[in-house]
Amino acid sequence: MSAASGPTAARSALDAAASARVGFVGAGQLARMTHRAAIDLGVSLSVLATAPDEPAVLAGATAVLGAPDDPAALASLAEAVDVVTLDHELVDGGHLTALLEAGHLVRPGPATLRFAQDKLYARRQLAARGFPTPAFAEVGGVDEVEAFAADHGWPVVLKARSGGYDGRGVVVAPDAAEAGEVLAAGGEWLVEEHVALATELAVVLARGPDGGHVTYPVVETVQDDGICVELVMPARVDARLAAAAEELAVGVAGAIDAVGILAVELFVDTAGRLSVNEVAVRPHNSGHATIEGSDTSQFHNHLRAVLGWPLGSTRMRVPVAATVNLLGGEAATSLAERLPRALADDRVHPHLYGKAWRPGRKLGHVTVLADDPDTALAAARRAAATLMDP
Amino acid sequence: MSAASGPTAARSALDAAASARVGFVGAGQLARMTHRAAIDLGVSLSVLATAPDEPAVLAGATAVLGAPDDPAALASLAEAVDVVTLDHELVDGGHLTALLEAGHLVRPGPATLRFAQDKLYARRQLAARGFPTPAFAEVGGVDEVEAFAADHGWPVVLKARSGGYDGRGVVVAPDAAEAGEVLAAGGEWLVEEHVALATELAVVLARGPDGGHVTYPVVETVQDDGICVELVMPARVDARLAAAAEELAVGVAGAIDAVGILAVELFVDTAGRLSVNEVAVRPHNSGHATIEGSDTSQFHNHLRAVLGWPLGSTRMRVPVAATVNLLGGEAATSLAERLPRALADDRVHPHLYGKAWRPGRKLGHVTVLADDPDTALAAARRAAATLMDP
Repeated sequence: MSAASGPTAARSALDAAASARVGFVGAGQLARMTHRAAIDLGVSLSVLATAPDEPAVLAGATAVLGAPDDPAALASLAEAVDVVTLDHELVDGGHLTALLEAGHLVRPGPATLRFAQDKLYARRQLAARGFPTPAFAEVGGVDEVEAFAADHGWPVVLKARSGGYDGRGVVVAPDAAEAGEVLAAGGEWLVEEHVALATELAVVLARGPDGGHVTYPVVETVQDDGICVELVMPARVDARLAAAAEELAVGVAGAIDAVGILAVELFVDTAGRLSVNEVAVRPHNSGHATIEGSDTSQFHNHLRAVLGWPLGSTRMRVPVAATVNLLGGEAATSLAERLPRALADDRVHPHLYGKAWRPGRKLGHVTVLADDPDTALAAARRAAATLMDP
Repeated sequence: MSAASGPTAARSALDAAASARVGFVGAGQLARMTHRAAIDLGVSLSVLATAPDEPAVLAGATAVLGAPDDPAALASLAEAVDVVTLDHELVDGGHLTALLEAGHLVRPGPATLRFAQDKLYARRQLAARGFPTPAFAEVGGVDEVEAFAADHGWPVVLKARSGGYDGRGVVVAPDAAEAGEVLAAGGEWLVEEHVALATELAVVLARGPDGGHVTYPVVETVQDDGICVELVMPARVDARLAAAAEELAVGVAGAIDAVGILAVELFVDTAGRLSVNEVAVRPHNSGHATIEGSDTSQFHNHLRAVLGWPLGSTRMRVPVAATVNLLGGEAATSLAERLPRALADDRVHPHLYGKAWRPGRKLGHVTVLADDPDTALAAARRAAATLMDP
């Protein structure tokens, strides 16, 4: 895409190099880490932020202050950039459609975003196209949960149709009584079989508007209470399973017309069968190890993809990269004060997001490169413990 | 260093995480690329900038607007940060001494900086301590140049005692007539023997306030008219010479009490002898390949060193990294417009500095990682040609 192809010709006086301009809806850590890549590429990054202390604004992205559910704020962002993309899924598809209709580029578009917003829609669409998913059903009342459990057994998984993330909106219900309590709280739910998990994988890929794509090595993710706590790239699975996971993700990318980074989270059950858990249509936690571990990070490739530029190599620079998330504990700790101690291991790569502490909040991550997964994981876990333990 | 050890207790309301604060005198590409590292480490970066369109300000570092020769501007920067460091050498040592006397941390300090500012002082001090340097002499008039040439032969090299960089202030004079013309233009000069070069090397190292240091693999640099045009890490020299270069640089670092990144530029003459050409007491062009090629970049390690934090691993992630500078040609070209074409080679890592075109100006660089130097260099040169050729 040439720099002049955006909907607005006006450029800031600062923009001497007529650089490409990308706008993120949201200003969290994903936009923050993309800003780091934007500096390299000479891309000018703007973010729709609700407050001036959000991670990407602290990192120096240009802030457009406003709420992601405010059509006027979204229009302000879109008018300042060549292409609009997403830091999170909490934006109304209709508002994005309005931007498209006004002549702005939105990548990914609202039809793709719906796969990350509406879990029932995603399950139905992907199942209809032959992609393996856990068994699922829409539920209105507890009687439907009981009918589903009669076929698939207890426990079942109840998922909020929309709005859930990092484990919120997902409940494992052992019986009808608990299922009834969940449904009584209101909202739209679907029920899924409780998959007996061997492991969880994620495939991160970058896909351009022309359908060209590059795939990162399959990542192994470890979840705790629905939150990703650590990951190993490449996953410790056999080559056949890794290839099947990649093929599945590439198929999903085409089916949902992803543009930018797509992360496909996969279950591997105890019989070795793959199924699609969820998709994220933006840079994703499961791709954080690509910053140090891959020739081109997911953040660089997200920018390249949404700008319609050629995609960068996803080859690994080293045998293994392991990442451990820094999740806020029950008591506040100062990451800044503890950081020097964590750096005593000279292999530790910290990424702090500039967020205030809150229990369970993702405050940063650490990545370690090594020749084998045990070494990388052990060092990353030690650094995370140094930073986070009470 | 704890976050509270700086001279000023006041913090911005945004600074929720109480991150460490580093201030650069200057806002060029070195501060810009350090800002990228500061984002990772959660460090807050401020820069003393003469204009709001300087590279580090465009990247999002906090700007303190003012001139580096204005003591009040320097004091404003120092009061906003925990430690002051340098993007360039164009700052008066006396002004830095005043900051030290006011209780601010300045790393490196003015005594170290003098080695990069005053070429005669550096030659004398390093020669007196037994480090190999080209033969040199102070010159007042052309008769002294002739006397020097009688001992060392023509041509000679005339160097401005201070203020020169990127080839400016360095003249190879073939005879007394030309030497006379150079001296007639005024200023203080020294004369040096014209070393018959086999190759040029640079050693980049990071050194903390406690003297602890880490050294990057020796880099081979190619200069054109005094400007670094490309570099290969590790240098294509035998292990004995590389070890001698590293030992020499570590010795120089201790002798000048470097803190932060130190780059020692070395001559290798046709007899295989090493001598010290120049030193830079800041992140340096010869270290740019460390961004992708090394486990910790020179920019991350500069921050870690000036903050007194443990230094990161300088191990290479790949066999070879080659970097080619993007120097403004005679006619303006738009890097932003050409960038997608250069990215068609998926191994190319561009770094654009956000500067307006000017002939000979360093506008960016590209790095390519590979298994061998020829492959890396050829790909980096092709990308640079795509971006810069008329």
